[in-house]
Amino acid sequence: MPEEKIITAEKLAEEFKEHSVAEFFKKNRQMLGLYGKVRTLTTIVHEYVTNSLDACEEARILPEIEVKIEELGEEYYVVTAKDNGPGLTHDTVGKALGQLLAGTKFHRLMQMRGQQGIGASGCTMLSQMTTGKPVKVITGTGRGKPFACEVTIDPKKNQAKVENLQELDKPFRGLMVQARFKDVIYRESSTGPLEYLRRTAIANPHAQVTFISPKGEKTTFNRTANYIPKLPVAQKPHPSGATVDDIITMGKASVARKVSSFLKSDFERVGDTAIEKIQKQVKFDLNKDPKQLSWDEAEQVVTAIKQVDFIAPSTEGLRPIGEERIKKSLESIVEPEFVFTLTRPPKVYAGGYPFEVEIGIAYGGKAGAGDNGTEEPEPKKGEEENATQKVMNGENQAKVEIMRFANRAPLLFDAGNCAITEAVHTVDWKRYGIRDLENIPLTIFINFVSVHVPYTGAGKQAITDEEEIMEELRLALMQCARQTAHYINTKRHEIENKMKRDMFYKYIPEIAGALNNITKADKKMMIDKLEYLVLTKLKLEKPDIEKEKDFEKKRQQLERIKKFKAELMGGDA
Amino acid sequence: MPEEKIITAEKLAEEFKEHSVAEFFKKNRQMLGLYGKVRTLTTIVHEYVTNSLDACEEARILPEIEVKIEELGEEYYVVTAKDNGPGLTHDTVGKALGQLLAGTKFHRLMQMRGQQGIGASGCTMLSQMTTGKPVKVITGTGRGKPFACEVTIDPKKNQAKVENLQELDKPFRGLMVQARFKDVIYRESSTGPLEYLRRTAIANPHAQVTFISPKGEKTTFNRTANYIPKLPVAQKPHPSGATVDDIITMGKASVARKVSSFLKSDFERVGDTAIEKIQKQVKFDLNKDPKQLSWDEAEQVVTAIKQVDFIAPSTEGLRPIGEERIKKSLESIVEPEFVFTLTRPPKVYAGGYPFEVEIGIAYGGKAGAGDNGTEEPEPKKGEEENATQKVMNGENQAKVEIMRFANRAPLLFDAGNCAITEAVHTVDWKRYGIRDLENIPLTIFINFVSVHVPYTGAGKQAITDEEEIMEELRLALMQCARQTAHYINTKRHEIENKMKRDMFYKYIPEIAGALNNITKADKKMMIDKLEYLVLTKLKLEKPDIEKEKDFEKKRQQLERIKKFKAELMGGDA
Repeated sequence: MPEEKIITAEKLAEEFKEHSVAEFFKKNRQMLGLYGKVRTLTTIVHEYVTNSLDACEEARILPEIEVKIEELGEEYYVVTAKDNGPGLTHDTVGKALGQLLAGTKFHRLMQMRGQQGIGASGCTMLSQMTTGKPVKVITGTGRGKPFACEVTIDPKKNQAKVENLQELDKPFRGLMVQARFKDVIYRESSTGPLEYLRRTAIANPHAQVTFISPKGEKTTFNRTANYIPKLPVAQKPHPSGATVDDIITMGKASVARKVSSFLKSDFERVGDTAIEKIQKQVKFDLNKDPKQLSWDEAEQVVTAIKQVDFIAPSTEGLRPIGEERIKKSLESIVEPEFVFTLTRPPKVYAGGYPFEVEIGIAYGGKAGAGDNGTEEPEPKKGEEENATQKVMNGENQAKVEIMRFANRAPLLFDAGNCAITEAVHTVDWKRYGIRDLENIPLTIFINFVSVHVPYTGAGKQAITDEEEIMEELRLALMQCARQTAHYINTKRHEIENKMKRDMFYKYIPEIAGALNNITKADKKMMIDKLEYLVLTKLKLEKPDIEKEKDFEKKRQQLERIKKFKAELMGGDA
Repeated sequence: MPEEKIITAEKLAEEFKEHSVAEFFKKNRQMLGLYGKVRTLTTIVHEYVTNSLDACEEARILPEIEVKIEELGEEYYVVTAKDNGPGLTHDTVGKALGQLLAGTKFHRLMQMRGQQGIGASGCTMLSQMTTGKPVKVITGTGRGKPFACEVTIDPKKNQAKVENLQELDKPFRGLMVQARFKDVIYRESSTGPLEYLRRTAIANPHAQVTFISPKGEKTTFNRTANYIPKLPVAQKPHPSGATVDDIITMGKASVARKVSSFLKSDFERVGDTAIEKIQKQVKFDLNKDPKQLSWDEAEQVVTAIKQVDFIAPSTEGLRPIGEERIKKSLESIVEPEFVFTLTRPPKVYAGGYPFEVEIGIAYGGKAGAGDNGTEEPEPKKGEEENATQKVMNGENQAKVEIMRFANRAPLLFDAGNCAITEAVHTVDWKRYGIRDLENIPLTIFINFVSVHVPYTGAGKQAITDEEEIMEELRLALMQCARQTAHYINTKRHEIENKMKRDMFYKYIPEIAGALNNITKADKKMMIDKLEYLVLTKLKLEKPDIEKEKDFEKKRQQLERIKKFKAELMGGDA
């Protein structure tokens, strides 16, 4: 046993070291979602695909994305991600793929899938850490010649190294990244790359997504909409979320010469009326230089702002998918019996970030993937690969499925820690008649869009349960629960009435015959009267052969709805 | 509507910006656990207290820690944390409290509570962001004069600013940090600072922890052990976890001139026999300069290492609390009917990091805090403060309580995402006879110790479910489940037998009398014989007045055990 060393403050001072953010994430790759053999591969696909979609949309290009995963050896794969986007320049290729915390998105207030400038560079670091190989890049911007190069990252300095740069003679526009990874496993499970891309397709009906699996199987998710989502406009912050720190920091950076013009130019929704109201509340002249604002003065401004009713933040930074498109997308991929979709109006959460919640509820058909929102366990060492093909065949295992999205990017992991899951579970479904939410063939699609998604971690797989977000999610879910219950009840009522009518109709001739025996009244007239009685009593129309053609189909539906109804109303149904 | 701008790669290139890690965490404070009004205050206490404990232990000082929270206004508090540790020097005070990713712990392989160099500086940033105030510091190292100063952080540069430095004439050794925070709320809930400190006291029986609440109530958790945990020794990495990247990076940094000596000096457990075995497997001479290793050669080394049986990693870097101390601590604070504790031998997880799992299971008494491992919801706006005092009175609400710790630091949040919770829920408790784990007055104490805890995020509240960690946690829990069931069964059997004996004894004189009437045999002899029969049949001893004094107490216990037994064995009991 070595003798214990007593360590003084002076001794500790010698040990103080600074480390780069790249070293930090190299040692803590799990914080980027790059852990777990299956999860890692999905996270890699996620990073490349979200970057491609963001870039295409910004350049007004209908995205065509191809992801190919090839197996090179045991737990050794090469991932190739290709898009038709704007491409990278000689200057940006290193920063985009080989430097952490560098990028175009961090300082902008607009809805993007990426926002940190970490993801793709994290993948470069992982490739390097596990295989020693650089990431191969081919890119063309449409101007000048496309080029190929290799990117690595120096973790100690958090700097990119771009090598073997070579101009190419064949035309190419877009970006192709090819990276190798060891200690990863490809699975066709509910948390694998294929399911990730399926969900990406659901939330991005304008994107053409192709996947080629290690077995060489090609899956194409065709676009169901030929539009490019309108480009979200980078927003100014809304005053209602401004903190004292924001006022001070932004005031120092502002080109405005007066606090009044600073507030009007650097925040949205601030006009002359608001400035007048603020001036009445604060104890200093708003003609003051915003660079000179003291903490106390900035605090007065924030307090004054709270007294003013501002117009809600602009939604120009937000691009929800839209009720119709979610419906179409779910109908095409989940093929349910019915869908209810809802896009709520924008709200603001702490920090003045606008956000919006979209929900789709699909019932029956292939709804409810049976994975119940829980993640597949990572495979054990030595376990045989046993790809569960349930992803693609969409078997209905009568379990609720919660599909989470943030700015249209699927969230497959960390469900237990996410505001969306929490909101689903804290809604009192029983109040709406749904007794056992877990065991219903229901797909709950939730897309959270915001100019800044408050992820719980740099791995971006779960959303923080901020008060305003939770409230909005719950409101949206309650509205959906009401509509869903209403739909099922109405539908059931209608079908059951038709079944009753059929039953009565079946016995009307017999009853008419019996009555005729007793009363000697006209049998034909009696049948007509009895039929009229049944129809008015049940508020139904006369049977119409054409209309009734699908009745048998509906009757089959009823069986399923009845089963659900038993859940809905318990024993009272 | 503004016209849409089409953005080219060249245009995007202009927008590329780098941002500092401080700016990143300023915008994403939730990733540091600094979100939620209640949670934020707990996280702040956590950051200061873990730093103090680490520093005291390293300097071989029995920790005396005092935390005081005062309310300054609505959602406005000042937190003062004082320790008797080694203190900070003029050089280190800024780095320790005003620069992210700077510190002594990141590069060392030893069990520490802190490991990132982020926490305390994150608090400085938050204080600054919410109040504009610097953090006030008083510190003395025992050499030279103690001094006071104020620390702020420049987020753009991630650099500390130390101002108003003033030497003090009165003696002081240790560190006192005083910081103000707005938009936070103090609560005495299961996720509040008081519960955090209670759990800190349980896992650190050598620490004296005092807390003064905003109401001025002083709570002292006295130390139950007068020892300073042996200082963990910084470890060399174990070869079995070495990656190719490690071999290359460490080879380049090594002072050794040969690969053979590099492996022997820079890894633990590598001796001449291992080197011989490795040499046989690789296709190059181990006399090669380690700085010149190619990826392929390093890969050969890693493959060869896998063929060698190394001694398990040293546990010198690990300092579990120990079975006896956990028992004493739980007995003193939870006051249960029985406790079972277990410290498993060390294991290694991916990356070659040694870790160890400790479990304590306490049943009855104040066990099971009723919070069921779920977090209290954050208070709603405008909601009246309604401090739930259940923390301190420890009412037994017959619910399981999972107390999670990492390197003795309590984990109060993100339970749903933590390997510990996951392990508890994936153990098949029914197999051990425990039918409804959620509703038993059980406290499950789990301490995960490691030289590098794989936290899921920089907020350090949940542990990643690495394969080896999950396996070890499950094994430990299963062992505990067996022991717990065994204890309860044995105990129950013993007490029930004693009750039977009492019942028989009660009727023996009557039976003897009745037999005497028939057989005329000696009544006294019959009583003796009958008593002998009962005792041998039930394998019991003669009643001993002294010993039996607590029998009534045990009889009361039996009622509780019976209730638990019903859970244990279902209807078969």
